[in-house]
Amino acid sequence: MKQIKLEPGLRYDGSQIKPLWAFQDLRVKGSSIVNWIGPMNIQPDELIDYEDVGLEIKSDEMIHFIIEHFDAQPADMRLCYHRQRILVMIVKDLLQEIGIKTQRRGDDLYCNGGKLSVSIATCSASSMKIHFAMNLTTKGTPSDVETAGLMECSRDRGVDEISKLADKISETYVNEILDIEEDIAKTRVF
Amino acid sequence: MKQIKLEPGLRYDGSQIKPLWAFQDLRVKGSSIVNWIGPMNIQPDELIDYEDVGLEIKSDEMIHFIIEHFDAQPADMRLCYHRQRILVMIVKDLLQEIGIKTQRRGDDLYCNGGKLSVSIATCSASSMKIHFAMNLTTKGTPSDVETAGLMECSRDRGVDEISKLADKISETYVNEILDIEEDIAKTRVF
Amino acid sequence: MKQIKLEPGLRYDGSQIKPLWAFQDLRVKGSSIVNWIGPMNIQPDELIDYEDVGLEIKSDEMIHFIIEHFDAQPADMRLCYHRQRILVMIVKDLLQEIGIKTQRRGDDLYCNGGKLSVSIATCSASSMKIHFAMNLTTKGTPSDVETAGLMECSRDRGVDEISKLADKISETYVNEILDIEEDIAKTRVF
Amino acid sequence: MKQIKLEPGLRYDGSQIKPLWAFQDLRVKGSSIVNWIGPMNIQPDELIDYEDVGLEIKSDEMIHFIIEHFDAQPADMRLCYHRQRILVMIVKDLLQEIGIKTQRRGDDLYCNGGKLSVSIATCSASSMKIHFAMNLTTKGTPSDVETAGLMECSRDRGVDEISKLADKISETYVNEILDIEEDIAKTRVF
Amino acid sequence: MKQIKLEPGLRYDGSQIKPLWAFQDLRVKGSSIVNWIGPMNIQPDELIDYEDVGLEIKSDEMIHFIIEHFDAQPADMRLCYHRQRILVMIVKDLLQEIGIKTQRRGDDLYCNGGKLSVSIATCSASSMKIHFAMNLTTKGTPSDVETAGLMECSRDRGVDEISKLADKISETYVNEILDIEEDIAKTRVF
Amino acid sequence: MKQIKLEPGLRYDGSQIKPLWAFQDLRVKGSSIVNWIGPMNIQPDELIDYEDVGLEIKSDEMIHFIIEHFDAQPADMRLCYHRQRILVMIVKDLLQEIGIKTQRRGDDLYCNGGKLSVSIATCSASSMKIHFAMNLTTKGTPSDVETAGLMECSRDRGVDEISKLADKISETYVNEILDIEEDIAKTRVF
Repeated sequence: MKQIKLEPGLRYDGSQIKPLWAFQDLRVKGSSIVNWIGPMNIQPDELIDYEDVGLEIKSDEMIHFIIEHFDAQPADMRLCYHRQRILVMIVKDLLQEIGIKTQRRGDDLYCNGGKLSVSIATCSASSMKIHFAMNLTTKGTPSDVETAGLMECSRDRGVDEISKLADKISETYVNEILDIEEDIAKTRVF
Repeated sequence: MKQIKLEPGLRYDGSQIKPLWAFQDLRVKGSSIVNWIGPMNIQPDELIDYEDVGLEIKSDEMIHFIIEHFDAQPADMRLCYHRQRILVMIVKDLLQEIGIKTQRRGDDLYCNGGKLSVSIATCSASSMKIHFAMNLTTKGTPSDVETAGLMECSRDRGVDEISKLADKISETYVNEILDIEEDIAKTRVF
Repeated sequence: MKQIKLEPGLRYDGSQIKPLWAFQDLRVKGSSIVNWIGPMNIQPDELIDYEDVGLEIKSDEMIHFIIEHFDAQPADMRLCYHRQRILVMIVKDLLQEIGIKTQRRGDDLYCNGGKLSVSIATCSASSMKIHFAMNLTTKGTPSDVETAGLMECSRDRGVDEISKLADKISETYVNEILDIEEDIAKTRVF
Repeated sequence: MKQIKLEPGLRYDGSQIKPLWAFQDLRVKGSSIVNWIGPMNIQPDELIDYEDVGLEIKSDEMIHFIIEHFDAQPADMRLCYHRQRILVMIVKDLLQEIGIKTQRRGDDLYCNGGKLSVSIATCSASSMKIHFAMNLTTKGTPSDVETAGLMECSRDRGVDEISKLADKISETYVNEILDIEEDIAKTRVF
Repeated sequence: MKQIKLEPGLRYDGSQIKPLWAFQDLRVKGSSIVNWIGPMNIQPDELIDYEDVGLEIKSDEMIHFIIEHFDAQPADMRLCYHRQRILVMIVKDLLQEIGIKTQRRGDDLYCNGGKLSVSIATCSASSMKIHFAMNLTTKGTPSDVETAGLMECSRDRGVDEISKLADKISETYVNEILDIEEDIAKTRVF
Repeated sequence: MKQIKLEPGLRYDGSQIKPLWAFQDLRVKGSSIVNWIGPMNIQPDELIDYEDVGLEIKSDEMIHFIIEHFDAQPADMRLCYHRQRILVMIVKDLLQEIGIKTQRRGDDLYCNGGKLSVSIATCSASSMKIHFAMNLTTKGTPSDVETAGLMECSRDRGVDEISKLADKISETYVNEILDIEEDIAKTRVF
């Protein structure tokens, strides 16, 4: 599974959740996790989460993760949402380690009562995709939702530290998936 | 998914990891999570984890969880190990909330450098099983491994509190799995 | 699995067979069976059954069922068509019980030589859908096919009785699926 | 899918439910439905239905069906139990046609309040198996259960007619499965 | 699995790779392999292989194969690409037998250093599709790629012989798939 | 996927086809292909191929391959037999390249009318296994079958060359599987 970091600036508009985005736009073939810092503004017709219909999904600066898995064929939404949860729990854990305490409800993280993150999982017949992103600040987030930003939860963190944290999250996730595969290969079944 | 609590005392000998144990021994039909406090001593021919061949797997008092899922047909070891990881991460989180700090490596929890837990996942063609257990004390654990016990990591916890924690773990796990199913049902796919 | 009854009147135009229709239009999340009385007129571009291309698929008053299942991931057309057959056989059985004798060929029911029903099954990567509907009368049915209506097969049935029958069908179907799940959980496999 | 009829007399002892029985004992390769008339006496260690543990499962003369499917890989217990239900519903229907009225509860048929049939489904990693059998008479059935026999439900039926009915059941089942496969191949998916 | 041969002349424009093309255009229901001789010119919006974006995919005269499988439900891209490889290896083998030596790299065949073939596999939720085609001559092939044609690799072959070869390829492929199914049905699993 | 070569001498007795043999005996975790030169004598109770019941399966010196795949979960016999065919076709191809012409029927290779190879595929719920082996000479092969040996088909080949060929086969197989995975990751699905 490849681990990619993009230059800051790419706007997440919902098109990146589409299958094979990493191959078509980044020439990354196979399972991958990509992270970058950039704004978000999801176009209504790119919505994947039908609970979000009619809502504004936007923020001026976020740390984004896009994951694509090709290992399970055909792709499996159930497995995909389990992986999303594992990702979110890894993030919560690594934030805790650097002193940022968050609460998790499903696939959302909260900080001081404000919503810190957005996330969705989806799939086609052949690949499973996850998007997870956290606000750096609350700038540009919807006015009708209480939001939080990583740099505000913990004022002394700079963008650099968050960028490093992102790499640590990617690496931990990749290792976790690898570790699970290894556990399958040591286990007797009935 | 049913949530069951047994009276203390049942020895975990490895037979409980077998498919349909809950139905055959407890008359619990369908997916379930069962918890209880009791000793552990795994018979060599009940070993599921081939990395443990030749090792003693025992402890005098543990809090045990046995999970069985029938939702995915045919049963899927990959999904099963993802669920095991989610369980372990839930445990780590809930321990943290009551002030017990642990480290996780794969499916193991450590406390002050001592191994606190054991875990395995397995499946048959029709069901997925998980065993997870944590030492209450290090009494009766193998002498050649540094172990830890929940009541020693955090001296002021009594058996009652641990028993309540176990129920909280079961409940949180059940809700997480349910929550994932609900997320599938709101998601557009490609 | 949720059992829903809509007010009479909704026209079945083929859009209701789309995945997540129940969630998007009715806020029903998860597996469900919905029934209602209403007309049918399928738009050509909503056709799912390629054998029906070029045919008129319409009727002035039908009892409709829309089923969606999220339990099997990824969704499985083979399982879905088996469930469709089970539904049709349940309907035939319940009609028989109230004295309406029908013949079944595949997923079609016939009464006195007239086609009483229409049905299709389909799926996306994450859900399985079934539509099944029976004419109440032959009013508004295609002129080039011999059709039948429930109220004509059995003249003394009113709309109320058919509406109650519909609920009985939904309930029996839901129980059958549940019963199958329970049988899996009592069965030894090889 | 092959349709086989055996000479009367083979005792059903539970070994016939094992995967590849038809290949090992009858040299029938691939998916098949086999029927024959013979007694039944299931050995306790051949039990597949854990609800039957400790019960006597026997009868002096039954019409037996053994089905094996290799089409779904890996084998799927959920699909297998759906097929079992379809078989039982086909049997109920064909009995009705020759004037024998039965009631169905799950996979059991009843006649005049007596249990007429036994059935189980199971699988290995590569095949799905179904056993379904109906008593010809109540002779040799367990004394602690009210049972019924086909020849008693409907006195004027001889063994010959039942044997012909069995072939009709096999044929109808085979055609139903084939018909489902054909329906998949005409259906647009999302 | 049906084996179909079309009259020469149909242009392959990429639309034939779509699920259910054989049913919609040829009234062929179920799994099939279709072959015919005709030109190729793939419309950019019909591209399946994202590595081919921006490339011209064309040739004046090719022998085409379109395969569709409905046996694995849900359809499985991994299985589909394994079948594509088996097809290509069968072709290489049969070419060898009539004295045409080729090299294979993945799903491509080369003759005297020129690219002889094009191929792609894809799927929907319910069917698996393969397109494989070989140039008869290099006429009309892209000028920026070194190509080869069957009639040029081996000058003394006429269109008739190639057409017969195509039928042999179809037949061998159909038998191979059937043979694999039979092997499953003789094999003990764990 | 790991590529392993063992010292000559290990007798293939059928136990090596069991799931997790490579992990238990060789400490190789995960998907692997192992090759070695050694005799074969399969114990009757280790038979996987029910067509071989009652036959002697033995040879004094063979080049063996044992493959285990953990990528598809749950394991899939259909996929496994497709991979076996791909392996056999790769072997045939590489033999041809060094001037040894063979014929293939299903999973068997023949040389000058003599059976050169044996092969079987099987699986558990979590892994897929393949055994393929070719006689070096006909020494020790069953007297009631016409057999062939690699060193007799082509007299000027020594054990060293065959050992190198074995590595080439392993490497080609590993690359083919990898190549297929890469093709999935470049393909648009419907």
